[in-house]
Amino acid sequence: MARNDLSPTRTPVKVSEATIQRLPVYLYRLQALQKHGVRRVSSRDLAAQVRVKAAQLRYDFRQFGGFSRPGQPYDVDHAVRRLREILGLAVPVNCIIAGLGNLGQAIANYAQFAQDGFNLVGLFDINPKLVGYSIRGITIEDIDAMPAFIGQRGVQLGIIAVPPEAAQSVAERMAGAGIRGIWNFAPVDLRLPPRVVLHDEFLSVGIMSLRFKVKALLENGGGF
Amino acid sequence: MARNDLSPTRTPVKVSEATIQRLPVYLYRLQALQKHGVRRVSSRDLAAQVRVKAAQLRYDFRQFGGFSRPGQPYDVDHAVRRLREILGLAVPVNCIIAGLGNLGQAIANYAQFAQDGFNLVGLFDINPKLVGYSIRGITIEDIDAMPAFIGQRGVQLGIIAVPPEAAQSVAERMAGAGIRGIWNFAPVDLRLPPRVVLHDEFLSVGIMSLRFKVKALLENGGGF
Repeated sequence: MARNDLSPTRTPVKVSEATIQRLPVYLYRLQALQKHGVRRVSSRDLAAQVRVKAAQLRYDFRQFGGFSRPGQPYDVDHAVRRLREILGLAVPVNCIIAGLGNLGQAIANYAQFAQDGFNLVGLFDINPKLVGYSIRGITIEDIDAMPAFIGQRGVQLGIIAVPPEAAQSVAERMAGAGIRGIWNFAPVDLRLPPRVVLHDEFLSVGIMSLRFKVKALLENGGGF
Repeated sequence: MARNDLSPTRTPVKVSEATIQRLPVYLYRLQALQKHGVRRVSSRDLAAQVRVKAAQLRYDFRQFGGFSRPGQPYDVDHAVRRLREILGLAVPVNCIIAGLGNLGQAIANYAQFAQDGFNLVGLFDINPKLVGYSIRGITIEDIDAMPAFIGQRGVQLGIIAVPPEAAQSVAERMAGAGIRGIWNFAPVDLRLPPRVVLHDEFLSVGIMSLRFKVKALLENGGGF
């Protein structure tokens, strides 16, 4: 297929993991600028604000056709719209959470998700003390009701916030019921069929990166 | 300074954000291999397991002197030890959490942190209903007690899990009391003096990356 047969919203097959991780960060920054009434921003300024090189940012955007003419600043509204389209946020998807301990409840209460096109439609837990309880108008159901629910409601994304020892079994039930992507907070290696996209969220990565940067700052004379 | 004046544990001044984010991921994978009794792993296999290019992984390790002779596999135990040293995990640091809602409680209960050298020593909240309650043997104190506590206990890292509107004020009180790094879960732009390292943890980035990958898979014919 020739490159110009691709419609502008079509996703290129090869986008690196690193680029994929940066796209939401660009979007956040651009939305913050938008909120502050900023209309245009250069690649250099935007890159500095998210701590990447300007060449990197331009390269990331070029994989999706670029968001401005060469040498021109980005129109903030346009770039936000394009990024939301690229990330798929323009089309809402149904999501569920399995595991409503503290972490699951924190995720369920995260107000931003709805604005970003993630419709939370179901909550599931194995604990009879939690079943029947509601969060944001959604009643927690028994985990055994989850597979049928996924099919009936066309749920695309599943969020796993169960204890590590339960994660593989929950993931398999999600996959078996036709879920397309799993956002996994359990610190275990899930084995899934290739048709299901897995995104692991290992909380420790954040604090380890922070620890490294503090160490680097102190060793290199950045102290008080 | 000539390159060989650097002691092996000294942190290079310039390490990219992307490399810093990958180091904990390599460590996790190597620790998982260690648990399964694997003694040696090639850069190629290790890279495939964490979904980066082998050249990228070798480049990341080379910035810290490399972990094996060229062409040789990594000794898993050695690589784990080196990475823990590089990340600063070998030296425990004192941490506190501000904000003990669901997210703060989930973080406080995350057992892995202690094993990785993050000593949780204090919990703080503004809510009188939470003050006095204990998590893992630590009593939640009023947020007004936080600044003095930071100084007395030599707290290096602060975790912010308060609502967005309270985050800037909490961050300033942490910074003013001498904290070195802040791990911020509030979806706001914190303004901090340059002597304090800020690491933002925006939960939405994970689900947006997942959404993108699911969309790419469906558009490129990866369906059932």
